[in-house]
Amino acid sequence: MDPLKRRFGTVIRKRRLEAGLSQEALAHKARLHSTYISMLERGIRMPTLGVIDSLASALGTTMGSLITELDRTAD
Amino acid sequence: MDPLKRRFGTVIRKRRLEAGLSQEALAHKARLHSTYISMLERGIRMPTLGVIDSLASALGTTMGSLITELDRTAD
Repeated sequence: MDPLKRRFGTVIRKRRLEAGLSQEALAHKARLHSTYISMLERGIRMPTLGVIDSLASALGTTMGSLITELDRTAD
Repeated sequence: MDPLKRRFGTVIRKRRLEAGLSQEALAHKARLHSTYISMLERGIRMPTLGVIDSLASALGTTMGSLITELDRTAD
């Protein structure tokens, strides 16, 4: 599995749970499909910058916050 | 034009010039095609997270640094 996708999925799942959102609720807020959120969290989809922007807005944070946290997960 | 893509392109062009790299040199370092770098800088392609990672490495910076700068370009 692509480590970058997996690391991103882990960050998104963590942030979603911290926000108290289900995958369905996050999907609705981000205008994405809940199946896609599930695939992102499992690290089997590579998000585009546009998806990252939508997720950040839906999670009430910035893209920079998400991606800086992602950087910290590097080996 | 999609403002997000345009803003990303502006950040990448600025960072590339600061690094003293041509589009061709950045493309080589990032293992991307120089035509693709040109399209990114002109805001006509939406990068994936994988491309952002490659660009950050090639520019000697972090994804978080690039994306935090991108956040600052928001209206």
